[in-house]
Amino acid sequence: MSVIQFAQPRKALSSEFLDAIGVIFGDRLKLGEAVRSQHGQSESHYGEILPDAVVYAHSTEEVVALVKACNVHEVPIVAFGAGTSLEGNTLAVRGGISLDLSEMNQILEVNAEDLDCTVQAGVRREELNAWIRDQGLFFPIDPGANATIGGMASTRASGTNAVRYGTMREAILSLRVVTPDGREIRTARRARKSAAGYDLTRLLIGAEGTLGIITEVTLRLHGIPEMISSAVCSFETVGGAVDTVVQSIQLGIPLARVEILDDVQIKAVNRWSKLDYPELTTLFFEFHGSPAHVEEQIAMVREISGMNGGGAFKWSNLPEERSKLWKARHEAYYAAVNLRAGALGWATDVCVPISRLAECILETKQDLLSCSVPGTIVGHVGDGNFHVIFSIDPNSPEEMIEVEAFNKKLVARALAMDGTCTGEHGIGLGKQDALIDELGDAVGLMRQIKMALDPKDLFNPGKIFQL
Amino acid sequence: MSVIQFAQPRKALSSEFLDAIGVIFGDRLKLGEAVRSQHGQSESHYGEILPDAVVYAHSTEEVVALVKACNVHEVPIVAFGAGTSLEGNTLAVRGGISLDLSEMNQILEVNAEDLDCTVQAGVRREELNAWIRDQGLFFPIDPGANATIGGMASTRASGTNAVRYGTMREAILSLRVVTPDGREIRTARRARKSAAGYDLTRLLIGAEGTLGIITEVTLRLHGIPEMISSAVCSFETVGGAVDTVVQSIQLGIPLARVEILDDVQIKAVNRWSKLDYPELTTLFFEFHGSPAHVEEQIAMVREISGMNGGGAFKWSNLPEERSKLWKARHEAYYAAVNLRAGALGWATDVCVPISRLAECILETKQDLLSCSVPGTIVGHVGDGNFHVIFSIDPNSPEEMIEVEAFNKKLVARALAMDGTCTGEHGIGLGKQDALIDELGDAVGLMRQIKMALDPKDLFNPGKIFQL
Repeated sequence: MSVIQFAQPRKALSSEFLDAIGVIFGDRLKLGEAVRSQHGQSESHYGEILPDAVVYAHSTEEVVALVKACNVHEVPIVAFGAGTSLEGNTLAVRGGISLDLSEMNQILEVNAEDLDCTVQAGVRREELNAWIRDQGLFFPIDPGANATIGGMASTRASGTNAVRYGTMREAILSLRVVTPDGREIRTARRARKSAAGYDLTRLLIGAEGTLGIITEVTLRLHGIPEMISSAVCSFETVGGAVDTVVQSIQLGIPLARVEILDDVQIKAVNRWSKLDYPELTTLFFEFHGSPAHVEEQIAMVREISGMNGGGAFKWSNLPEERSKLWKARHEAYYAAVNLRAGALGWATDVCVPISRLAECILETKQDLLSCSVPGTIVGHVGDGNFHVIFSIDPNSPEEMIEVEAFNKKLVARALAMDGTCTGEHGIGLGKQDALIDELGDAVGLMRQIKMALDPKDLFNPGKIFQL
Repeated sequence: MSVIQFAQPRKALSSEFLDAIGVIFGDRLKLGEAVRSQHGQSESHYGEILPDAVVYAHSTEEVVALVKACNVHEVPIVAFGAGTSLEGNTLAVRGGISLDLSEMNQILEVNAEDLDCTVQAGVRREELNAWIRDQGLFFPIDPGANATIGGMASTRASGTNAVRYGTMREAILSLRVVTPDGREIRTARRARKSAAGYDLTRLLIGAEGTLGIITEVTLRLHGIPEMISSAVCSFETVGGAVDTVVQSIQLGIPLARVEILDDVQIKAVNRWSKLDYPELTTLFFEFHGSPAHVEEQIAMVREISGMNGGGAFKWSNLPEERSKLWKARHEAYYAAVNLRAGALGWATDVCVPISRLAECILETKQDLLSCSVPGTIVGHVGDGNFHVIFSIDPNSPEEMIEVEAFNKKLVARALAMDGTCTGEHGIGLGKQDALIDELGDAVGLMRQIKMALDPKDLFNPGKIFQL
């Protein structure tokens, strides 16, 4: 699947338009090829496609002014954060402006007593966590990459902590947003819950910048648990690993993290992160709570694990040990892609009801046996979400076609199990057909909303669906 | 505030239209005054306003057929569940059809392993819980009333368990919905999370039937905790009670329920439910977990409570004792309204960041001292949400005016604290001005969505905002 198929003819930016946005952004308007190329890449298998210009915004007011100018001149705008999305979500397939929000990186307020904070969209999750750690607080959502909060909101990201703390959908209290007609709105107040009108916050979360440009985000935070304990445990079978998690959740054990890595992924992790885990299906656990409660959770999970063919638990209780463990997990994508030097990555992203997860993974592993492209499996098993990470030879169109067919079959399998084509990466360019397979006529409703709010189709056009 | 001000001239239903829907519903089409009057009432202070006809649907297909007929004849449709909403949400202010879904009361499937179930919209929460109890499962969302799941979805309801288990926003995985143009859609699959396109599920939750008619709901369930322990504790001051909760939450104690009742409300509860709680500001607690974990939570909360002027904890560990305690809490609304025989109820519903809650309640209590209408305070203190429940003389327009002014002042106070005018009752008829004060231009976005999806304004017209 080449990005070229999505690209459409574009007209050059007029000098009038460039003058207009030059007044707003000064030397933060960039036309050079290097910076445009940097905004025309993705971390996945999509090819390069350059925006016509890049601007670095410093305020919501600048975004409003840009949107108004783009409206007058009918120029597309694609919001850009850290560029770590995996479905081509930020590629300017119809040209126009790449609006880089990474310099809007201020933490505007932290309300420790209310367990919330408000940040600009360009703040990255690791910076946020570093900033609030001293106040005993943390922000749990962690896709592998050090993404921006605005980008994570726009793709409805999640990651390893979602099983306990939810996804960006649950993590956000309110958004400051610039609409396609250049209005600036706030979608909600700072109250923990509200029944005041349509849930615009949730409508914007996961809209991939097609309905509004998020400039500020108010987030729920959590107190750092008194005790955090991590463990790694190998299993004889995939089914045993998955059943351990299903049974733990059914018993109400509040697992903070539980990740599955298959034998091939463990091999890749061992190589990439210089570790020596047994090369078997493995669960990475984390437990949060008071010391007594953590101990109790561990005892219960150990018992369940033992009944399902789990081996010994290898513990990491010191912060540096835990960091090493989770760093290895977070680098799983890079570890897997680099199974072959210079390879291109492609991560699938299905999510199924957890009762079907073992079956879904096993059938997928079976398919991998006959696939000529190396692929690993890694997943947020508590959510029913897993990824196959392929390591594709960039000079082999055949491999690309093979992986595309593999993904199509995998998505069909997940849909047949009442699952979704994307647990956390979004639709972007790559899952548009799958979205229609998944939700049918509901996509028509999405289109109606898009056309009502962005009749000129200027906000990240060509993403999620074709109008 | 009389419902009359919202009522608009209506044309009589044509015989052609009545014939068309008669074919669909047979003798489940009702034109008699008694049944129309029953659908023209509310549990709150809104006057009676009758729909022109009532139909009892038995299937999504019937709803589709009704919507198509209503489209042709331009007849409004108001979905109706248990009729327990408090902001006039189901009153047919523009006439038309009251679509009663209460006979769509089948529990369609329970997936114990996935901790979810799918029910028709007319299932009531108590019936659902009775049905799933044998499988060790429960559904936590509990507004006081025994509302229907469809109605609870449409008002984004919550209740006493929201502090731990979230609101209807978090409780729903997927909806089956009939759109204003008569299409039937499903908003999501049964996966626990998804990043597939716009979050139509959340857009429909809280839309009060103005964007779609919910006919089926897929809900997240929870395992019944091994141990449940409830307690009542009186406090010397409101501040002490609120601080106890704030500090407990900051420490990460997973309170399952924590409710505040002021001295006047306790007096009303004692009288209504024949109890003898000390007539002081009181917290009702519930703890869920393993026996050891519950014990640990209790020890921590007791210590915090002691430091904040809390008295002895009165425990209820037996199911029947707990039921009695929570029945008293759930009947707080009726207890308060009936402080005066034959009185009309009016419940306010602000929600503020929890750091401002004590201040907000204290200022409100101050206002109550000079208010001639008796009012009690009861609240979901962990969420920052509380209600003043007034007991209004139905023959005194002055009292109605006084309460209206009181509510206006209370909403302004909550908004000044970055709170919301409604934590869980919705906008309906009563909070439309407040919604604009709260969200400003964002309401314009809501209107654009409404006009795009329901251009004839037939789905619960006149609610949330005026087009």
